[in-house]
Amino acid sequence: MALIIQKFGGSSLADAEKLRRVAKRVVAQKSQGNDVVAVVSAQGDFTDELIAKAKELTDIPPKRELDFVMSAGEQISAGLLAMTLKNMGFGAVALTGWQSGFLTDSNHGRARIRRLDTDRIELELSKGNIVIVTGFQGINRYDDITTLGRGGSDTSAVAIAAALHADKCQIFTDVDGVYTADPRIVMNAQKLKAISYDEMLELATLGAQVLHNRSVEMAKKYNVPLEVLSSIECQPGTIVKEVAKLEKMLIKGIAKDDNVARISIVGVQDVPGIAFKVFSLLAKINVNIDIILQSIGRDNTKDITFTTALPDMRTSMDILNENKDLIGFTRIAADDNISKVSVVGAGMESNPGVASKVFEALFEAGINIHMISTSEIKISVLIDKEMGSKAVNAIHDIFEE
Amino acid sequence: MALIIQKFGGSSLADAEKLRRVAKRVVAQKSQGNDVVAVVSAQGDFTDELIAKAKELTDIPPKRELDFVMSAGEQISAGLLAMTLKNMGFGAVALTGWQSGFLTDSNHGRARIRRLDTDRIELELSKGNIVIVTGFQGINRYDDITTLGRGGSDTSAVAIAAALHADKCQIFTDVDGVYTADPRIVMNAQKLKAISYDEMLELATLGAQVLHNRSVEMAKKYNVPLEVLSSIECQPGTIVKEVAKLEKMLIKGIAKDDNVARISIVGVQDVPGIAFKVFSLLAKINVNIDIILQSIGRDNTKDITFTTALPDMRTSMDILNENKDLIGFTRIAADDNISKVSVVGAGMESNPGVASKVFEALFEAGINIHMISTSEIKISVLIDKEMGSKAVNAIHDIFEE
Repeated sequence: MALIIQKFGGSSLADAEKLRRVAKRVVAQKSQGNDVVAVVSAQGDFTDELIAKAKELTDIPPKRELDFVMSAGEQISAGLLAMTLKNMGFGAVALTGWQSGFLTDSNHGRARIRRLDTDRIELELSKGNIVIVTGFQGINRYDDITTLGRGGSDTSAVAIAAALHADKCQIFTDVDGVYTADPRIVMNAQKLKAISYDEMLELATLGAQVLHNRSVEMAKKYNVPLEVLSSIECQPGTIVKEVAKLEKMLIKGIAKDDNVARISIVGVQDVPGIAFKVFSLLAKINVNIDIILQSIGRDNTKDITFTTALPDMRTSMDILNENKDLIGFTRIAADDNISKVSVVGAGMESNPGVASKVFEALFEAGINIHMISTSEIKISVLIDKEMGSKAVNAIHDIFEE
Repeated sequence: MALIIQKFGGSSLADAEKLRRVAKRVVAQKSQGNDVVAVVSAQGDFTDELIAKAKELTDIPPKRELDFVMSAGEQISAGLLAMTLKNMGFGAVALTGWQSGFLTDSNHGRARIRRLDTDRIELELSKGNIVIVTGFQGINRYDDITTLGRGGSDTSAVAIAAALHADKCQIFTDVDGVYTADPRIVMNAQKLKAISYDEMLELATLGAQVLHNRSVEMAKKYNVPLEVLSSIECQPGTIVKEVAKLEKMLIKGIAKDDNVARISIVGVQDVPGIAFKVFSLLAKINVNIDIILQSIGRDNTKDITFTTALPDMRTSMDILNENKDLIGFTRIAADDNISKVSVVGAGMESNPGVASKVFEALFEAGINIHMISTSEIKISVLIDKEMGSKAVNAIHDIFEE
């Protein structure tokens, strides 16, 4: 008898028919004699609808109350799934974030899990119940409801798996596994049987949108075996674990991220401390920076270029311009018409051929590279947005050969 | 500085515009220097929508999970109202049933409040916050979410008013007070300035649908001054208190209840214990009985006739028929085409003229009376459903003169 944690996203819970399909997935495990905890998101677009309601009332909804409102979404889907299971003759109990023991910090909208008191979940499992847990939410030490931010339900599922030493944490999505590239962009993209945490982490961070990086980080930290699989088709998915058996192909995946902007600070003094000034300002307003590139100084000035998420572009430019005197620069330039295409694979750093192959593919496709960034297991290039899909295909093809 | 509890129903919270209007009502009190706790229902028909979703999945939704799902409704409206108030520059905090300290028994779907721990509400008030509380809900001693059943939000509001010794508990509804009859039926119905708890209780029980009887009972028990007033128009409503100053008119109101059925058990033996058998069977399946009438025995048999709520008619008949041998009767007859019209007013029992006036009015309107029931402060008659409005008008007119 194993303990299986299953996580279902909002699109797989959108209506009665889909809820019944999810219930069958849960029951399939339970019927094999396994204990099951199912973690659920809100139904369909319900969270977005709630946010829209809030924005009708106030431009910037206060975070505590927004969490209060949003958390109702998972409560509804969890209760409905529990009903469905009971109707099928199985013992089932739905639990909110606080009932499940999710204790978080007070960072409303993107709280971190501080502690998970699993008493109630364990009690219900010991009674033979299937436990349905609302993902994405918890409470802080003042008993206020918090939400975990993007990818929160994945994180909830992995946290339960870690705390209960589950045998497996299955993440059901609308794709049936992790692919070498987005199958909607690259026709002959291949599904991976296995991938390591680090590789998955690079893919997640790079916008592959299969798993959120926080959940993968937590899975890696607590060595939780993940499986990414389809909520529709009944096929084995992709296993994410510590040492994934290396497959033939050197690269594990190609990801494209359109949600990116490039900002250049032109003509800053070539003296120490400039980068610190710039990035501490941006950190203060919670802007995450991805690639940073600093030009070689010339005429005693230099340029600092960095990328950030698209929604942060405007606020980043504003705060830099507000502090023009403090930093000292000629002008700010920004470009939101770009895509970041990244190639991920372990062992890449010991094989310089990979990078040159990427550049060769882009050259032959006639695609101009604006910026390059490399790490141990990935190469990212910034290109024009309209070239994104072409670039992913070109790179995929060259490694297929 | 007074402490005011305000309760807003679902229709007054249905959209952004209405939420803003409610917020103005709250702010009007706060701006006068009063502390305010606002108790809210779910928006518009949201609770019904949730129940419909549940019924798509299972004919009889399990009660614990239905409470779990339904309670999300008030959570959304409470959070949205708090946002609206914050956007207007006021400190506001939304609290769920469990955060507000509502501890109930485990009777899911119609839980009773066991205890109210007001620590959190008092803490927030002491900070100068307007406190928005989700009505209708609490938790039991296992930390499971419960709901209080019909009229639950009124009850929540009165409970807070009682526990905090509030100066007033305002119930905002879609009518602007308590009338001598339903203003939609009787054109010249008059709004009452004041009414006693007992009179209000009779009207509530009789289907006047202004206040639920549980909330009035609780208000009477803890001597909470209630005010029923319109959520739309800014006018004084009707005060409900212990000794309402008697107004000129002897009768306080006329109520019509269409949600009623009459069941007759024909031909039972005229021996002791029959009534006990019948009504203990019905109590077992939680059917509430209203009027009971037993015919005088003839030929050693008699008939027992009673009324019950319309939805309970079928199950009542079923259980009686199942126990035909135990009870012993010829047949069951039922009638769902009836209305109960009631006249309420303190001092009625000492004025026999009231009853005869009611009968006179019905006679002159050509309305046949099927059953009569009287108490100290009310007279109820059962008549054909299509005669309901005519009867209310006829009775109202005769007392107007």
